[in-house]
Amino acid sequence: MDGRKGSKSRARITAVAGDPAWQQSDWLATEEPLEIRISDGASLDPLLTHVTMRTPGADFELAAGFLLAEGVIRRPEQIRQMEFCVGPAATAVQQYNIISVEVIDPDMRGRTDAYFRTAVSACGVCGKASLEELSLRGVEPVTAGAEIDQSVIERLPILLRERQALFDITGGLHGAALVTCSGVVLAVREDVGRHNAVDKLLGWALLNPKPAAERAILMVSGRLSYEWAQKAAVGRIPVLAGVSAPSSLAVDLAREFGLTLIGFLRGDSFNIYSGHQRVRLRNSGDQPATALPPAPSQRRSPA
Amino acid sequence: MDGRKGSKSRARITAVAGDPAWQQSDWLATEEPLEIRISDGASLDPLLTHVTMRTPGADFELAAGFLLAEGVIRRPEQIRQMEFCVGPAATAVQQYNIISVEVIDPDMRGRTDAYFRTAVSACGVCGKASLEELSLRGVEPVTAGAEIDQSVIERLPILLRERQALFDITGGLHGAALVTCSGVVLAVREDVGRHNAVDKLLGWALLNPKPAAERAILMVSGRLSYEWAQKAAVGRIPVLAGVSAPSSLAVDLAREFGLTLIGFLRGDSFNIYSGHQRVRLRNSGDQPATALPPAPSQRRSPA
Repeated sequence: MDGRKGSKSRARITAVAGDPAWQQSDWLATEEPLEIRISDGASLDPLLTHVTMRTPGADFELAAGFLLAEGVIRRPEQIRQMEFCVGPAATAVQQYNIISVEVIDPDMRGRTDAYFRTAVSACGVCGKASLEELSLRGVEPVTAGAEIDQSVIERLPILLRERQALFDITGGLHGAALVTCSGVVLAVREDVGRHNAVDKLLGWALLNPKPAAERAILMVSGRLSYEWAQKAAVGRIPVLAGVSAPSSLAVDLAREFGLTLIGFLRGDSFNIYSGHQRVRLRNSGDQPATALPPAPSQRRSPA
Repeated sequence: MDGRKGSKSRARITAVAGDPAWQQSDWLATEEPLEIRISDGASLDPLLTHVTMRTPGADFELAAGFLLAEGVIRRPEQIRQMEFCVGPAATAVQQYNIISVEVIDPDMRGRTDAYFRTAVSACGVCGKASLEELSLRGVEPVTAGAEIDQSVIERLPILLRERQALFDITGGLHGAALVTCSGVVLAVREDVGRHNAVDKLLGWALLNPKPAAERAILMVSGRLSYEWAQKAAVGRIPVLAGVSAPSSLAVDLAREFGLTLIGFLRGDSFNIYSGHQRVRLRNSGDQPATALPPAPSQRRSPA
């Protein structure tokens, strides 16, 4: 089914660490284009074609998660079939780099491309109203009442890090994990593309609906910008956590859509930006309302 | 001119570091949409409208760099004028979040959107040939013979880090710097959007052509994927360096376009993936051809 292409590649490099330098072979995270062709079965021409640069592996999940995140579909039943374009007519580069998806009842009104970098009509609407229109049309706030202990939150970075197998080899991928509120890891995905690791998880949850993402935590290795909150809201994942800082819009969106947003999660320290009610702190009865050191924004990555 | 909007925002958060938690105000990197409307002056309707999520500041540079990176223009003279859409008709969110650019002789054959996630025609071309067609059409290999001492390379991370003013406050932005081969910092830009920091630098170099980017180093804070090599090639910047790992396609592209690509640059250690001839190592005469420890891919970020 999936993962017919390798997710790592070898390269000859010069390594420098003091003197003298030496040459050796090293592993790189593979980055190749995946073309997703979406059709409704009524015509041979795709309704929409999208190219993303991804690390091969979990490609069907990536395609499904992309469709969900972009609002093309809302339910797994809307995917009638999904297949690689292969065969003698495909070049070596095309083999397993093109996926055709036949979608039932797609919701693509006005869309010509994705990632909110949409070639919008020239109506002049920019900013919140327009963004919501483009990306969160019809998405309701997440009301799932998941409760998470502080101890589970503190373990999230290591739960993710322990399972980043490709990162161990290449040092060069984004990682994302779906973890239950009690700390059970449901799935981990890695990708050179920052969106793709999360889209793969969304697709996994869509295609494997048994373990409910509705009560899970989305833990990511990088910074928390707008798209992460958007994808969590669309995927109905109530808690979003990351090792680095959130942006202002990620916080705005998390608050608007009822998400619990946790940032700067490192060791036993983290910041809660929204949805505090889902977090069970050890001493939750006595939170002083005034600030004390250390300033959370000083907990930051070195570069 | 530029930067009429704040680049940081305040938020009330709960901070946890041991017990008990406390509440305080913290700075976030601002993330807002910037809509870039590109017209050729012949019609009131834009030829292309693009929305990117960015940190406000250096918005004209961002727009100019975007046009260059996407192949809409090749020379600064192709920008006839660039202005914010402001005035009583614009909403609060629209104020200083829309830039209109009038372009002379735009090169937008077949393009409807950008970032290589283009809604390409259904011709079925995927992979290298198609990507080159989309993003590197007409771009020649970079032949600039810049020479960089090992000591300058070793200083790049600190040169960038010292100037990441917004990162100091918010802990949440990507950084990129243009540095001369002798180690003089030409410009540093920060953004929540990983592409935007580099696009701002490309725009800066385009709009301020005195200090030649042709002999500079592009130093970035994150991972080195395809787009970075593409942007360096389009911007005619011969050397690309980063603190983290490159992807396989970044290495392929760097080799194809004659770029020097340096990754895992931390302290006095780094890997050279292509364009070794521009690097003057301290003991360049005696590089053994065989591998010695430590394996470079083990020099990686903690998460």
